[in-house]
Amino acid sequence: MKAKRSTRLVDMTRFLMENPNTVVPLTFFAHRYESAKSSISEDLTILRKTFQESGTGILETIPGAAGGSKFIPSIEKDEAVRFIEELQSFLDDNTRMLPGGYVYMNDLLNRPSILRQIGRLIATMYKNKKIDAVLTVATKGIPVAQSVATLLNVPFIIARHDSRITDGSTISVNYVSGSQRRIEKMVLSKRSLPANSNVLIVDDFLRGGGSAAGLCSLINEFDSKVAGISFVAERDYDGKRKISSDQYTSLFKIDTNSDEIKVSQGNFDWKPFDNFSKKGN
Amino acid sequence: MKAKRSTRLVDMTRFLMENPNTVVPLTFFAHRYESAKSSISEDLTILRKTFQESGTGILETIPGAAGGSKFIPSIEKDEAVRFIEELQSFLDDNTRMLPGGYVYMNDLLNRPSILRQIGRLIATMYKNKKIDAVLTVATKGIPVAQSVATLLNVPFIIARHDSRITDGSTISVNYVSGSQRRIEKMVLSKRSLPANSNVLIVDDFLRGGGSAAGLCSLINEFDSKVAGISFVAERDYDGKRKISSDQYTSLFKIDTNSDEIKVSQGNFDWKPFDNFSKKGN
Repeated sequence: MKAKRSTRLVDMTRFLMENPNTVVPLTFFAHRYESAKSSISEDLTILRKTFQESGTGILETIPGAAGGSKFIPSIEKDEAVRFIEELQSFLDDNTRMLPGGYVYMNDLLNRPSILRQIGRLIATMYKNKKIDAVLTVATKGIPVAQSVATLLNVPFIIARHDSRITDGSTISVNYVSGSQRRIEKMVLSKRSLPANSNVLIVDDFLRGGGSAAGLCSLINEFDSKVAGISFVAERDYDGKRKISSDQYTSLFKIDTNSDEIKVSQGNFDWKPFDNFSKKGN
Repeated sequence: MKAKRSTRLVDMTRFLMENPNTVVPLTFFAHRYESAKSSISEDLTILRKTFQESGTGILETIPGAAGGSKFIPSIEKDEAVRFIEELQSFLDDNTRMLPGGYVYMNDLLNRPSILRQIGRLIATMYKNKKIDAVLTVATKGIPVAQSVATLLNVPFIIARHDSRITDGSTISVNYVSGSQRRIEKMVLSKRSLPANSNVLIVDDFLRGGGSAAGLCSLINEFDSKVAGISFVAERDYDGKRKISSDQYTSLFKIDTNSDEIKVSQGNFDWKPFDNFSKKGN
């Protein structure tokens, strides 16, 4: 379609948002809109500035023959702080207490608008890592994993405690559940992860870290590497976890030792959010 | 921020795509960009035309005091036909055959780009229904449910075969598994679905329809209504299903009776895709 600037701006925004973390050559847009490369270049400058100012993400320019533009979804610090505070006040609610120090979070982790923001936070934290796939274990971690994977535009794979016929051939590992000191099993479909992948582990809740350690050994069995481990929330935990605190990030810490829920910010670092600010530096 | 037209077009596109199926008042944009309502109106006309031409969705204008603009993600027929054909050729692969006539689909239903297109197809089929929530049963249906729910901008809720402590109080139903003729149980967290909700059931695969019938009675127990039932694929099935073919839509039919997989188009109707065409009618 031969397109005017106004049409191009709308359609390019849509296209880049639907295809994040993908290098789109200048010629693709020039051809799509039957426009000169110089006009497309000017359009991209407008997009880059607007994405930056609204804190939506970074529009990176990759130079050279294989170059083009790559949209990297992120969240800027002010919005991230507001969102963390908002979610913290949702979580800080004693009616969420369940027996055994568990916390009810289903109503938050099933809302697309909340999941998108959590995804943007985690994507921003790991934006400098090479990630080929997101891994979680069924069931509660799936929505968060999907949200992160959608923004990174990589597959998300789901390990299970019980293998199903629909998984086909599987590889399994045994691990010690951190919180209950039982031997558990975890399986992953053999075809689901190619060797030499860089894998980000994502889950909803960290207790003893047994599942996360199990996922790490599963990644190892697939001759792949752990690129990071990220949780929505971690619980206060007595004793030694199966993973150490410099291996993972958490958005929230939840203390349920007393009769009240106490929620505070997780162990994540604000540094990745600093590079990217509204001021344009 | 005081914003020029070019900036407004980029930011409005981003905003409407991130907040689908939500009425955004004209005054919201006028205020956000410190611009006259008449300018915003002109911007919206450009967006509406571009979304229509690219087959991204419908930008509806809701008149009156509570009015504004609502972006309804859909997919236009040509793109839908191409996507169905493409996915059909992926599925039509004998290495996907698993024992017992099962079909390996994990590698497709874990890719964000495929899930988005499936979501757009299902959202288009049900675009004239009022839907308050999307319901699925763990595990394989979750990614598809999340994708549909994200486009409809409603919560997605996950029933389970085994209740977990993190669900809190649950309501359970028993149902007869259609394919294996066993009594099964299904539970849903009591807080997860308010009464009088209109619920779209989404799942990956239809065999005997037992799970779908179980989800229907679960919705009934929550004093809510079934707005529709949608599957990615249905298998050829001997015998009477627990749900009838006018109750559900499927994108694909998969025949695994011989040694070869045969994939054809599912039972869905192309009519909802007709109203919305590139030609602008």
